[in-house]
Amino acid sequence: MGSLNGRHEAVIAVDAMGGDFAPEEVLKGAVQAHRRGIKVVIVGPVDTVERHLEALGERLPVVNAEDAVPMDEPVAQALRRRESSLQVAANLVLAGDADGVVSCGNSGAIMAITLTAWGRQPGIDRPAFGGNLPVRDGSAFVLDIGANTSSKASNLVQYAIMGDVYVRIARGVDNPRVALLSNGTEDSKGTKAVREANEALQKLDLNFIGNIEGNQVFEGAADVVVTDGFTGNVLLKGSEGVAMEMLRLIRNELSSDVVAKLAGAVMMPAFQRVRRRVDFEEYGGVPVLGVDGVMINCHGRSTAKAVTNAICLAERVVCENLVDQIGEALHHDGVERSNRRRRLARAFRLRHQ
Amino acid sequence: MGSLNGRHEAVIAVDAMGGDFAPEEVLKGAVQAHRRGIKVVIVGPVDTVERHLEALGERLPVVNAEDAVPMDEPVAQALRRRESSLQVAANLVLAGDADGVVSCGNSGAIMAITLTAWGRQPGIDRPAFGGNLPVRDGSAFVLDIGANTSSKASNLVQYAIMGDVYVRIARGVDNPRVALLSNGTEDSKGTKAVREANEALQKLDLNFIGNIEGNQVFEGAADVVVTDGFTGNVLLKGSEGVAMEMLRLIRNELSSDVVAKLAGAVMMPAFQRVRRRVDFEEYGGVPVLGVDGVMINCHGRSTAKAVTNAICLAERVVCENLVDQIGEALHHDGVERSNRRRRLARAFRLRHQ
Repeated sequence: MGSLNGRHEAVIAVDAMGGDFAPEEVLKGAVQAHRRGIKVVIVGPVDTVERHLEALGERLPVVNAEDAVPMDEPVAQALRRRESSLQVAANLVLAGDADGVVSCGNSGAIMAITLTAWGRQPGIDRPAFGGNLPVRDGSAFVLDIGANTSSKASNLVQYAIMGDVYVRIARGVDNPRVALLSNGTEDSKGTKAVREANEALQKLDLNFIGNIEGNQVFEGAADVVVTDGFTGNVLLKGSEGVAMEMLRLIRNELSSDVVAKLAGAVMMPAFQRVRRRVDFEEYGGVPVLGVDGVMINCHGRSTAKAVTNAICLAERVVCENLVDQIGEALHHDGVERSNRRRRLARAFRLRHQ
Repeated sequence: MGSLNGRHEAVIAVDAMGGDFAPEEVLKGAVQAHRRGIKVVIVGPVDTVERHLEALGERLPVVNAEDAVPMDEPVAQALRRRESSLQVAANLVLAGDADGVVSCGNSGAIMAITLTAWGRQPGIDRPAFGGNLPVRDGSAFVLDIGANTSSKASNLVQYAIMGDVYVRIARGVDNPRVALLSNGTEDSKGTKAVREANEALQKLDLNFIGNIEGNQVFEGAADVVVTDGFTGNVLLKGSEGVAMEMLRLIRNELSSDVVAKLAGAVMMPAFQRVRRRVDFEEYGGVPVLGVDGVMINCHGRSTAKAVTNAICLAERVVCENLVDQIGEALHHDGVERSNRRRRLARAFRLRHQ
């Protein structure tokens, strides 16, 4: 389908220094992805990275970056680190030496650096973070989950279009059900922005199912849930909180007496399955949508498995040409692809170094 | 403490016709509350109500109201039903024949009718719905959970003051930790209204602990969580959704094979305890705060137990003079109590009819 697909392989730049367990877990994840046949290039301090790779028994291409963005650094400071692993990884894409980036680093810095390095995708006013929530019989893709604290109706409409394309590509959903998160299902419910977006979305060529409430998200009512970054963040963090507290309650109940302990031991595999269903690790990173390139941001606490999943995801959305497909959905006639050539102008020197 | 306490008993008007299980469950709940020593007056169609009461083996004072507000009726229409049980109950308070109202009816109508009948409490620009969320080792009182879709900083500050007083009275918490719900803990995080409210709350005589995120709500970080009605509704419904889906997952796991079924049977009491922890029934209704009177709104699906709890709650907040205490907290010097005398001007004719 996409312009890369079938022509050459995608290369994913991996920020070795982002995340709470960097570089160990990040590199383990990258090695696993490499062993699954994905081309990766590691970005980080070359000595450290090569020492870790040696211990893992793998040789991977490395691009040196001596600096790194700390997890809690303010965005303005992070942007000044011109030699950070994150910045160097973004530059690789700009130069055509990589096709996408995976980082477990500081989300604010990730958004700012990709936006500065790559710019917004034409037709998008504000990029968004998307995120997967585990819901009944599957998952829901929620955006924005924190890039923009407030959103106008036009932003929400753009999120809906981006979410629709992303879910088709990343999850293979054919005709995603797109919904607006609101405080009631009626079209008249919600903030001014939500009400206006509802009206606009009804006119678009989307499977728009209208407004849904918080509980319906988890009942699996929609594949794409559109909201502003403030509400999306509260929904995401709140649901994580409820799930964790319920697991905690159950764990306490299971250790309350001997009979419960025995029964609990028998049921441990079942609980592990439940826990896995509500675990972000399984979901392997969230995309930055609306920037002119592919960036997958993993949770800061990601271990190797989540990193591997994120690299696989990045490769898939690169091969399916996420950015161009969003562009086409926005404009129908396929205009506004000024940056396409740049992204396709690939340099191969890294690959065979 | 309050002006009613120790002087005479509070009378709670119960809207017999609000809720999905009205009038049966409502009347059972009212009878239970009466048997716990609380003075109630039932408002509804006198024949129907008395027939039910007879079946329950109890005589209670009844005020006739032939009409009722349907659960899904638009507010404008509901307001035109001058003889609805809800309207008549609100009028009883206005006339001094009751001190508070409990209804499981249509929330929109409840807010509109109390606001029209009683007016706003002086010093409050917008009334709010408060709600209890089960959290680690207790519950958090969240407001607004749906009265106002958007809120200015001044509204959020008023919610904080009302929530602080309510939690002291209704839950007996000494120095409630008050927090603003935001998308980050830093003071700089959140919408413009949240940032401004944060600044204002730091100057007040409250135990204000700053911003908290969604997960922290469920970790029990605060006793009072302040937010706008849109976000509060999403948090509440979303957390209900997660809890219900997790219970569903666990139930499915428990019936997956014979061993799990056996273990599940042994553990049923433990699960019931978990389920009870996340069940709104235990929490017995949410107050309308900021109107000039006491109104407790129960969930539409409330059964007798929730109604009884709500009546007990209404009696407590009446006896502790919720409205006056909020007025005092708002003004420190105790001014703005123009309606106090009216509320205290009690008529006793119902009681002994």
